[in-house]
Amino acid sequence: MKIEAVDFFYLSMPQVEDIGDGSQDALLVRVAAGGYVGWGECEAAPLVTIAAMICPMSHSACKPVLASVLGASLDSPADIARIHADVHQNSMDLLQADHALSGIDIALWDLLGHRYQEPVWKLLGYERAYPKTPYASMLFGDTPQETCDKVRATRERGFRVVKLGWGPYGKTTPEADRDQVLAAREGLGADGLLCVDAGTVWADDLALGEARLAALREANVYWLEEPFHTGALHVYKALATLSAPIYIAGGEGAHNEHMARHMIDYAGVGYVQIDTGRIGGITVAKRVTDYAVQRGARYINHTFTSHLALSASLQPYAGVREHHLCEYPVELKSLAYDLTSEHLLPDANGDIQTPDQPGLGIAPDVAALRNYLVDAEIVVNGQTLYKTPAL
Amino acid sequence: MKIEAVDFFYLSMPQVEDIGDGSQDALLVRVAAGGYVGWGECEAAPLVTIAAMICPMSHSACKPVLASVLGASLDSPADIARIHADVHQNSMDLLQADHALSGIDIALWDLLGHRYQEPVWKLLGYERAYPKTPYASMLFGDTPQETCDKVRATRERGFRVVKLGWGPYGKTTPEADRDQVLAAREGLGADGLLCVDAGTVWADDLALGEARLAALREANVYWLEEPFHTGALHVYKALATLSAPIYIAGGEGAHNEHMARHMIDYAGVGYVQIDTGRIGGITVAKRVTDYAVQRGARYINHTFTSHLALSASLQPYAGVREHHLCEYPVELKSLAYDLTSEHLLPDANGDIQTPDQPGLGIAPDVAALRNYLVDAEIVVNGQTLYKTPAL
Repeated sequence: MKIEAVDFFYLSMPQVEDIGDGSQDALLVRVAAGGYVGWGECEAAPLVTIAAMICPMSHSACKPVLASVLGASLDSPADIARIHADVHQNSMDLLQADHALSGIDIALWDLLGHRYQEPVWKLLGYERAYPKTPYASMLFGDTPQETCDKVRATRERGFRVVKLGWGPYGKTTPEADRDQVLAAREGLGADGLLCVDAGTVWADDLALGEARLAALREANVYWLEEPFHTGALHVYKALATLSAPIYIAGGEGAHNEHMARHMIDYAGVGYVQIDTGRIGGITVAKRVTDYAVQRGARYINHTFTSHLALSASLQPYAGVREHHLCEYPVELKSLAYDLTSEHLLPDANGDIQTPDQPGLGIAPDVAALRNYLVDAEIVVNGQTLYKTPAL
Repeated sequence: MKIEAVDFFYLSMPQVEDIGDGSQDALLVRVAAGGYVGWGECEAAPLVTIAAMICPMSHSACKPVLASVLGASLDSPADIARIHADVHQNSMDLLQADHALSGIDIALWDLLGHRYQEPVWKLLGYERAYPKTPYASMLFGDTPQETCDKVRATRERGFRVVKLGWGPYGKTTPEADRDQVLAAREGLGADGLLCVDAGTVWADDLALGEARLAALREANVYWLEEPFHTGALHVYKALATLSAPIYIAGGEGAHNEHMARHMIDYAGVGYVQIDTGRIGGITVAKRVTDYAVQRGARYINHTFTSHLALSASLQPYAGVREHHLCEYPVELKSLAYDLTSEHLLPDANGDIQTPDQPGLGIAPDVAALRNYLVDAEIVVNGQTLYKTPAL
């Protein structure tokens, strides 16, 4: 097969709020080849990512991402790996390229799955997909009481693992953060697994992270996520050395395999959190899974958007039984929820199953998405390089 | 002063060729505040970088870069540092943000220089600017003879240091590469300093780099640049352990301070090569300079574009006498040459002086640039977010 068409659809809520909720817009990618269609999603700024797909060439190592994709052969996973190598060579100086490639890669795997009537995880070489224990991923409340209430409600919905992040956490005093974390523990109960996401709020200041450890231990927190910027490897490492028994988690900012490996090798994270919509798609996420297994770190998805993205994020480590936690967004905006008509719901045990239908096993609800479609147009020297296609 | 306006100008040669010459287009940035104007240049895909400046917000950590710049206070270098922190927090999930910020940062320093009537290097805290020995930065010829001829011609122009890169190097056999490197040495003469740039051609394959070391030693090459992708730190380190007396150089792909530090701390480069137009501008480049000095690595600019970019790239280490080499592009396309009417030419000793006029000490030739101006327009839901302004 040859890749005949790659189309992008910028979707957005009517109003985007100034909060840390990444489900307020989306960039959907549709790939067509040999009569088959595959869908993917970039977890990335839609307009900038579209520009990276179609921009004019700057030089031989700064080409638009589509230059390495359109017309390429696609018959096997090896073809996807070759497309990756081409994009990295031809778009090396295009910073946004990895975010753009992510959605394309996911769509290519989905398409191959439909072609061969296999779920993606089988094409990746796994014999079976193991159930994952979902952790409910939520934002901190504005007050400890609000946090306690929302965690309690989530526990009552059946979630045994909860992660709170962003909001006020880390921005004022260790005492205020202690109140928030203890409130979360109160809402969850003593036997639940509680995680905290600092959202890189301390940049690269070790002391600010260290000052929170006592309260995190008091609340029996399982991991502390993203205390620092992704690149601050030595600061991560210093905190990881001090934080036991609390794991340090991070990696969602990784936009290539190397960066994920750095989080394991140099930053000392116990959990490496990978967003398939950013790191270069399923191809790269699977390589990181293999590396994490080899190095004794735990792989886990980062997903705060649609259930299409959730399926794509589960595929890379579906067959690794021991890495059994998964992020599960529970506060989706309607766009992200409506993006698919089916959803990956907890089973009777409260676990999430990676679909065993062909491809991602879940498809966009095209009719519903028309309500969210953003009309975008990019014109350079009189030539229309992009115009939102019909959905 | 408040930042009143930030404008971008996409410039391009009429025809962009599929070669590794980054001087074929440019994104120029103009900042206005308090009656002063500053200019900067992003070494980045223009259209994608414009999109990063003006895209709609996706969520609180994925805002357009301008959201943290327009209206901000600008009275001192501390204000620039604060703008950096704001961009990193507010555009954390916007991958292209660092490339966009780079040109803005350079323009902010230029503007402050005009405001205080000081060259940027003085505002950075240097007492004086030391002369730099330029290395002529060129592409390999298609054949060894062509390489020999062009290097000889460059030597006859007075350059004692030459770097050859890209073209056929590294893509076929070690024998073919040996012929190229020995031809370069022949053209340069025995006493010149010769450097080789592999342009990341071996990705992360140590053996492919190692196989070239013998010929590089035979040609008495001073450094081998970018044998691998920027992130392949452990492979860099392995080659650096084997390469003496040849230094390993790299870092042009770094788009933040952390990545540059990784090249020093984990990759073991002897020369860390920083492009102010990519890493976040002069602010970040100065931090990398300080770190390199502290760690005993040598800082050097990466510049393959205009003399505006060249001045911006010299400022961060102008006052460090011991780090005396600088990259000097000698094969500029007319756009990059015409971008300024003045040029930083070698003095009687063959050295380059960082300008001691206010700001960058060199300004764009606005009239000449109108010939290269690209007309671009970005419209989202009927609203024009960008239209090329008048120059």
